[in-house]
Amino acid sequence: MRRLVIVSALSLAAASAYAQSKEPIGLRDMGSFHVGGRVIEITGQPVKEVVFTPGGVPAKVDPNGKYQVEQMYVQYFLPQNRKGRLPLLLWHGGGLTGVTYETKPDGGDGWLTYFIRKGWDSYISDAVERGRSGWTSTFKGEAVALPQGDPWERFRIGPAGSWNDDKSKRATYPGTQFPVDAYDQFMKQGVPRWLSTDDQIVAAYIALVDKVCPCVVMVHSQSGSFGYKVLEARPDKVKALVAVEPTLGGDRNKVDSIKNTPILVVYGDNAKDHPRWSKIRQGGVDYAAALKAAGGSIDIVDLPDAGIRGNSHMVMMDRNSDQVADLIQKWLVGKGLAE
Amino acid sequence: MRRLVIVSALSLAAASAYAQSKEPIGLRDMGSFHVGGRVIEITGQPVKEVVFTPGGVPAKVDPNGKYQVEQMYVQYFLPQNRKGRLPLLLWHGGGLTGVTYETKPDGGDGWLTYFIRKGWDSYISDAVERGRSGWTSTFKGEAVALPQGDPWERFRIGPAGSWNDDKSKRATYPGTQFPVDAYDQFMKQGVPRWLSTDDQIVAAYIALVDKVCPCVVMVHSQSGSFGYKVLEARPDKVKALVAVEPTLGGDRNKVDSIKNTPILVVYGDNAKDHPRWSKIRQGGVDYAAALKAAGGSIDIVDLPDAGIRGNSHMVMMDRNSDQVADLIQKWLVGKGLAE
Repeated sequence: MRRLVIVSALSLAAASAYAQSKEPIGLRDMGSFHVGGRVIEITGQPVKEVVFTPGGVPAKVDPNGKYQVEQMYVQYFLPQNRKGRLPLLLWHGGGLTGVTYETKPDGGDGWLTYFIRKGWDSYISDAVERGRSGWTSTFKGEAVALPQGDPWERFRIGPAGSWNDDKSKRATYPGTQFPVDAYDQFMKQGVPRWLSTDDQIVAAYIALVDKVCPCVVMVHSQSGSFGYKVLEARPDKVKALVAVEPTLGGDRNKVDSIKNTPILVVYGDNAKDHPRWSKIRQGGVDYAAALKAAGGSIDIVDLPDAGIRGNSHMVMMDRNSDQVADLIQKWLVGKGLAE
Repeated sequence: MRRLVIVSALSLAAASAYAQSKEPIGLRDMGSFHVGGRVIEITGQPVKEVVFTPGGVPAKVDPNGKYQVEQMYVQYFLPQNRKGRLPLLLWHGGGLTGVTYETKPDGGDGWLTYFIRKGWDSYISDAVERGRSGWTSTFKGEAVALPQGDPWERFRIGPAGSWNDDKSKRATYPGTQFPVDAYDQFMKQGVPRWLSTDDQIVAAYIALVDKVCPCVVMVHSQSGSFGYKVLEARPDKVKALVAVEPTLGGDRNKVDSIKNTPILVVYGDNAKDHPRWSKIRQGGVDYAAALKAAGGSIDIVDLPDAGIRGNSHMVMMDRNSDQVADLIQKWLVGKGLAE
């Protein structure tokens, strides 16, 4: 009998934790659209006969003509219980897509559902030439894909030399919060990316901002640079910028123009000491000093200094991602941008 | 005073239509995952120094090593008011992604939200090498992208010779339901696709079916072929197949193995007369006869014969898409698969 009671209590605790993390999501609407891009023309190519489905009926395809290129895919979720005062735009980092913010590689809830549940109208996009935005062979250079070991060290899951093809021999930073058992699952989220498309990506983000903002923009990694560029182009429309592990700050010659937009910069663990990240972070710190000197508002949070330890570069996928999201949400509430 | 009354009545009618089409969506959960794929190895390449962000800190990238390839992206929405007895899997056609079923190019609600509102646990995926599934340079041949005019005629929006780069000079079939003003917006949904990847795509769909089925599978265009192949591989898990404008039927040598799964095939308008589609449709009709002769259950609906006129190949984007969805929903209810 006593054993039964214990089991029941445990079941109840588990069910309650489940119910808490899986609070229903009520949406007044959801949907998607493509924005931006341009039309180019291809000429002088021969007409081809294409069998689209092996065994199917051939079709003639004339490859000459106009092509739609450089558009961007955006998916949105509008909660019934709206508490964010502006839309929240979630921009992912290099070699990835909006999936970054969806379910975590270990199956846990990611930041998209976190912020929807907090009442934010949330817009998640795939940068130009990635994911559902499509791509074309017209970009300069070749698309880069990453081998499985590369992000392990570059995204600070383990220190230099810690990668091993053998899963059981991979070392991590002590106390890492990245769900290392789900690392191979994380690598399934990767997409090739060009190194020559920043201008096209920024143009599409500006088209998005012109369509749905004023707003709050959240950026990660490579899109840190895009967030600053778009803020500099539309300082009246980007009402706050949350930069999670940005790889670059803004333009020091344009700090005057963006000083009315509060900025939060968040770095995870080991960023201060990592050979490459220490330089990236220092660049961010120096930029923040220049922005502050011009009267701007920028807060830099090194998570370990805030008592939040073990975060990799992929903060939103770490086991303690909700803890970091709480910190961001509190900052946004403090700026009067959410209830 | 009379004028004011009329205006108020109109506003009310508009607001009521809006409220009706935008009935809130209650979800007990939503999320995404990648499924399937395999790991390959690249060797003998030189180490590169890569500047991922122009102006950023260079990173060394060793392109040698193992790569994740051929996985598939899946996003799911689980309604609170579940009425479908099984999950509903939505598979898109060639050169496109799961976006096919999302918001229509003219901004109207697509089939994803239609079926979620009808209470189906809905799983929408991007085929291998498309959209958020990512792609690699390891596929045979080149990826094909379509010029703007190609789908206009091949997808039966207008007859042969009706395309014109000048929007105002494009001709359509009489009474087309495709939202022609949104055609250029539709073309933003396109992604390149290879012609050599059917096996990899089918493998990933089988991995998905093994993960989330028994289920109902809905296919469109190119994925008609995939739907039949997966049904033939997993006849006990695919409990119904809805094939919307499939470009190919199943394997006539395998009709015996799938005769317990009911199949609905839907063709839009002008399919009987179009030079290419008439052959595709006839292939589907002949296949259905073979399946029926073996004791299988297959219903072919030519929409005009059911009184639903003007549908293009992109039925789920046509203005009357809800009417066709109603027909499909009714068929599924009739098969005991939904309340």
